[in-house]
Amino acid sequence: MLVFNRMAVIGVGLIGGSLARILREKGAVKEVVGIGRGEENLKRGVELGVLDRYTTNAKEGVAGADLVFVATPVCAIPKVVAEIAPFLAPGCIVTDGGSVKEFVVEACEQLMPEGTFFVGGHPIAGTEHSGVEASFSTLYQGKRCIVTPTANTDALALEKVVEIWKIAGSTVPLMDPVQHDRVVAAISHLPHMVAYSLVNAVDGYDRFGGDLLSFSAGGFRDFTRIASSDPVMWRDIALTNRDAILEMMDFFSGYLETLRGLVAEGDAEGLRSFFLNSKEKRDAIL
Amino acid sequence: MLVFNRMAVIGVGLIGGSLARILREKGAVKEVVGIGRGEENLKRGVELGVLDRYTTNAKEGVAGADLVFVATPVCAIPKVVAEIAPFLAPGCIVTDGGSVKEFVVEACEQLMPEGTFFVGGHPIAGTEHSGVEASFSTLYQGKRCIVTPTANTDALALEKVVEIWKIAGSTVPLMDPVQHDRVVAAISHLPHMVAYSLVNAVDGYDRFGGDLLSFSAGGFRDFTRIASSDPVMWRDIALTNRDAILEMMDFFSGYLETLRGLVAEGDAEGLRSFFLNSKEKRDAIL
Ligand SMILES: NC(=O)c1ccc[n+]([C@@H]2O[C@H](COP(=O)([O-])OP(=O)(O)OC[C@H]3O[C@@H](n4cnc5c(N)ncnc54)[C@H](OP(=O)(O)O)[C@@H]3O)[C@@H](O)[C@H]2O)c1
Ligand SMILES: NC(=O)c1ccc[n+]([C@@H]2O[C@H](COP(=O)([O-])OP(=O)(O)OC[C@H]3O[C@@H](n4cnc5c(N)ncnc54)[C@H](OP(=O)(O)O)[C@@H]3O)[C@@H](O)[C@H]2O)c1
Repeated sequence: MLVFNRMAVIGVGLIGGSLARILREKGAVKEVVGIGRGEENLKRGVELGVLDRYTTNAKEGVAGADLVFVATPVCAIPKVVAEIAPFLAPGCIVTDGGSVKEFVVEACEQLMPEGTFFVGGHPIAGTEHSGVEASFSTLYQGKRCIVTPTANTDALALEKVVEIWKIAGSTVPLMDPVQHDRVVAAISHLPHMVAYSLVNAVDGYDRFGGDLLSFSAGGFRDFTRIASSDPVMWRDIALTNRDAILEMMDFFSGYLETLRGLVAEGDAEGLRSFFLNSKEKRDAIL
Repeated sequence: MLVFNRMAVIGVGLIGGSLARILREKGAVKEVVGIGRGEENLKRGVELGVLDRYTTNAKEGVAGADLVFVATPVCAIPKVVAEIAPFLAPGCIVTDGGSVKEFVVEACEQLMPEGTFFVGGHPIAGTEHSGVEASFSTLYQGKRCIVTPTANTDALALEKVVEIWKIAGSTVPLMDPVQHDRVVAAISHLPHMVAYSLVNAVDGYDRFGGDLLSFSAGGFRDFTRIASSDPVMWRDIALTNRDAILEMMDFFSGYLETLRGLVAEGDAEGLRSFFLNSKEKRDAIL
């Protein structure tokens, strides 16, 4: 099996912490160094057995690492890579877990010194919780991690990053960064935009005074779970995948407008078939 | 405790079956008669111990009943009540579980013969499954059932209907039918319209060919669970609560439009605070 001597994780949260946990468990890394901005979260990472040691100095942290996993919010990923690039050991592979890929991959590829390699990745797995405390080793089990090579990607580095995610339990489709960003805009970013808007709308509706949300049943709670996701993570996603998100929001609004028309017209058969198509498609992914 | 001699359930599905189960379990009904259009579902109701006996003849089914629970899709409720009204025993209480109340209560109150009573109700509880097979006795446990009296409602009948839902384990807020319809438009009908539209949109997006939905992770599946709900039930809700649903869809679209603006402008602070408000409100109802 693929074994790394030293893995550095920058941004030891849900995504970074969970990958460190599983690679340690599987013996795929000999040592894990955590890198972050504050000590508290990192200390907790050592206590929880996610990290062997930590530092707030990224330069020191990446020294001698043959694998660096960057799992900060998306906007910070290129900044972090720019900061560490001059200090990477020859042959080091840098990969990330950011939810947007064109923005990240385009910027980071250019930052890599000769003989070091960047490969973009995005695990389609997560919860609405954050921080190392929320991490767990089975997060990636049975999930997909999309890896996004480009024409510039080193073939061997790509192979190793794919292998990492397989060790973590995921299947690993390869996808162009631009295509990736459209796919996740549809299945993840759009639903989040919709859920955030829905909770704000219900919260903002005060025609009857009273606390509408207190009447919400299980359906509403499940439906809006993703509206509890981290605001900074989602700010960064919205900032960096703007065009795809706008395209999907407009595409969705068209469907909502169609449904609005059916409701306004009282079109019984149109309503039933709109709902039925959705039910059939949804049941197929149960 | 309140005890009914004979309860007739018309529409022995998730909602009707679950109320029959719990009232039997608690000894609050001596006999339960199931009434439906086809024998198959009703036979299953007897096999599952939900019903003592059944009939497809509503007139016969309600004979001698002191409680009738109508739990068909909303549009059928006034039709069913019109059909049984002439055959109700004196003192009989008819109540329903329909998700829309103004349409149902206005129609049914007028149909009741002297000395029989209609009281509208709506349990805020459910799953996306239907039929008697999906029913279970704890469905209403810890939930709310909104009961919707009007100026015409008999005080004693109201008291008994409230008591029924308390026996089923629910708290029982009273609400004007019109207000009820706005509240559920916001917390239930709007989310369903949004979820149905979202699944149809993602299903309809074919820019990259391929099956987008196959990439969906847990977040998407939870988010869209309610889009698996019964198309006929939701057709009827959309037909009978039209104005409130349109109002809420438009109100929601305003928020979506605001968010679209923040995304288009790349307004980092605006995005973060939009997401944060939603997260805080959502976390409060966890
Ligand atoms: N959550 C999900 O569902 C999910 C799924 C797939 C991909 N992702 C992606 O994975 C990445 C991490 O998400 P997560 O859920 O793991 O978030 P998280 O639990 O909040 O962890 C992110 C970590 O990054 C560090 N960080 C935050 N802001 C930073 C900044 N400006 N500069 C440098 N470091 C910073 C923080 O550690 P310190 O405070 O110690 O610096 C934090 O622990 C994001 O790019 C996200 O888009 C998330
Ligand atoms: N599901 C929820 O989450 C939920 C929550 C709260 C309230 N409600 C309301 O409760 C009511 C029943 O919903 P449910 O989820 O229990 O549905 P369900 O499981 O499909 O049961 C409805 C039953 O009504 C009968 N029925 C269907 N169409 C009919 C028609 N046109 N005329 C007469 N009977 C008909 C069917 O029995 P036969 O085939 O044997 O006639 C069926 O078993 C609806 O008004 C709904 O709005 C549902």
